[in-house]
This record gives sequence, C-alpha cells and structure tokens, in this order.
Amino acid sequence: MAHEIERRFRLKNDDWRGLVEGEWLKQGYLSVERERTVRVRVKGTQAWLTLKSNISNVSRHEFEYEIPLADAETILATMCPMLVEKKRYRIAIGPHLWEVDEFFGNNAGLVLAEVELASEDEAYTAPAWLGEEVTEDPRYTNSHLSQHAWPSWPENQPKP
Amino acid sequence: MAHEIERRFRLKNDDWRGLVEGEWLKQGYLSVERERTVRVRVKGTQAWLTLKSNISNVSRHEFEYEIPLADAETILATMCPMLVEKKRYRIAIGPHLWEVDEFFGNNAGLVLAEVELASEDEAYTAPAWLGEEVTEDPRYTNSHLSQHAWPSWPENQPKP
Repeated sequence: MAHEIERRFRLKNDDWRGLVEGEWLKQGYLSVERERTVRVRVKGTQAWLTLKSNISNVSRHEFEYEIPLADAETILATMCPMLVEKKRYRIAIGPHLWEVDEFFGNNAGLVLAEVELASEDEAYTAPAWLGEEVTEDPRYTNSHLSQHAWPSWPENQPKP
Repeated sequence: MAHEIERRFRLKNDDWRGLVEGEWLKQGYLSVERERTVRVRVKGTQAWLTLKSNISNVSRHEFEYEIPLADAETILATMCPMLVEKKRYRIAIGPHLWEVDEFFGNNAGLVLAEVELASEDEAYTAPAWLGEEVTEDPRYTNSHLSQHAWPSWPENQPKP
C-alpha cells in the first residue's frame, strides 16, 4: 500500500520536449467514483490493476497488482468503455521526478505535468515550462478524462 | 480467464444442513454495474480481487487475482461501503458441485444454492431441498445483495 501526494500542472510551453524519451501508456477504468477508482494499465509488455481510495485531492491510498498482459488487453477491450492513451516522459529535476503526460486518442492536445511529494507542503523547484497548477481541479484526473474527453470541455469549444 | 455458467435457486427446506462443513466468506464490491463487477473476497487467510464482465444472466467472463490478506482487509474497510458475509457449503451431487450460501449480517435469513454448468442447457440432478430457480432475477446476485439487503426487499416487509 502506498500513500501518494501529487501536484498537477498544465504546461506553459514545449521546452520539456527532447529532454527524455517517452513511454506509451494505455489505461481504462472499471470504477470511477468519488471515493475510489479501479484502473487497468498497460505499459509495453507489462500490465497492472490499481485501486485508489481518494482521501483528499492531493492525498490517497493505492494498491497495485501486476496482472498478465493478455488479461489486461481483454479487460480493456470488454469492460472499459473509454480508454486513456498517453506518452509519459519522466524528467528528474533536483530531488524530484516530474512526469509529463502527453495525451493522444480522445484527449489529444492535452499535456499535464505531475510531481510526487513526501508531504502536502513539501517545496519543489518549478521548471520554466511549468504552467498553471490544476491539482484542485478534479476534471484533470485521468479517471475524469476517461469519461469526459478534454476537447469536449466547454472552454475548449470553438468560440461562436 | 474463466467462462462461468451458473444457475441459482432458493431452498425448499433445511435438509442440506449437516451434509458438509461450511466456510466463512466476507466480500465487498468496488464496482457494481450492469456490464461488470469488481469484488474483493476474504476466505480464511486468503484473499482475491475478482473482475466479472456480465455477458448474459447465466454466462460471463471472470478474472481472479490473489492479493495479500492485509490489503484486502484495508480495501474492505475503506473502499467498500457494504459487505456481504456468508457461510458456504460445497455439496457434490453426481458430477456437479453445489454451493449453498447461508447469508449473515445485512442479508441474514437468506439461503441460496448455485451450480456451475458446462453449457447453458446442461442437465443436472436437482436435490430434494432445491426450491424455486432465481437465475433470471438479478436481485439475487451478491453484488445486488451488497447494495440492497434481502430483508429490505418489498416482499420481505411485514404485512400490514
């Protein structure tokens, strides 16, 4: 069981590109509720089933179990109505590891950065490409994005 | 991945009692939807996470993974709003194994028998204690019972 504290941000520009190689992630949700989520994730030839209980927006409990890739592919195809597809770039800055997620598929166009912290008030060095913080906006969680694609949000509609 | 075909029945009398020893099961649900369920089950010192996709009332796909008992106890306590507690009796009759579930806790008073078959039309020997078939009544699924306890059903209310 892990206890995760994460802060989440939009990105200001593309200066993070080219720093590291990205890796493809494909995931779907078996349960999306305010109290908990159940996620299936495929990365390369590995797959996991992950349970998260939400305690607050930035702090939660997590249980993760590796499962056979073939099971995960069948579960994603038959039990998960919508998928989240993204390329993840892991960028070390000082003592922290930033994860930049570039979304494809239904959420194409969205890029987010996340950092995991030891406590809710731990200091961190903000890279120059970091934009607005969206930790408190639950619409930016992957579970929400799986059901409400970013391009469909009201503020992303073409102006009349 | 297993492909389950089950038929479910009420019980006519108590003649099944004393045939075999029962074992305690405690389970909760992380997701209960028409398309799928995610269940955590504890039996003795073992625990499992089980995903079922419902294809029809009697036929479905199932994925099951053993998880640490301590994880399961925390998941049941923190992520599962309602629990199903029952004693299960496994009774062999001819080539088939019958599972008689005697419910306790929220569903105290209910007893159900299930048999697993190789095909939807496979014949079986009905024991004398078998009552009405309820396979087609989704209220008798454990996932439904976890959210709508049997004593609270309209037909189980005291008559005015």
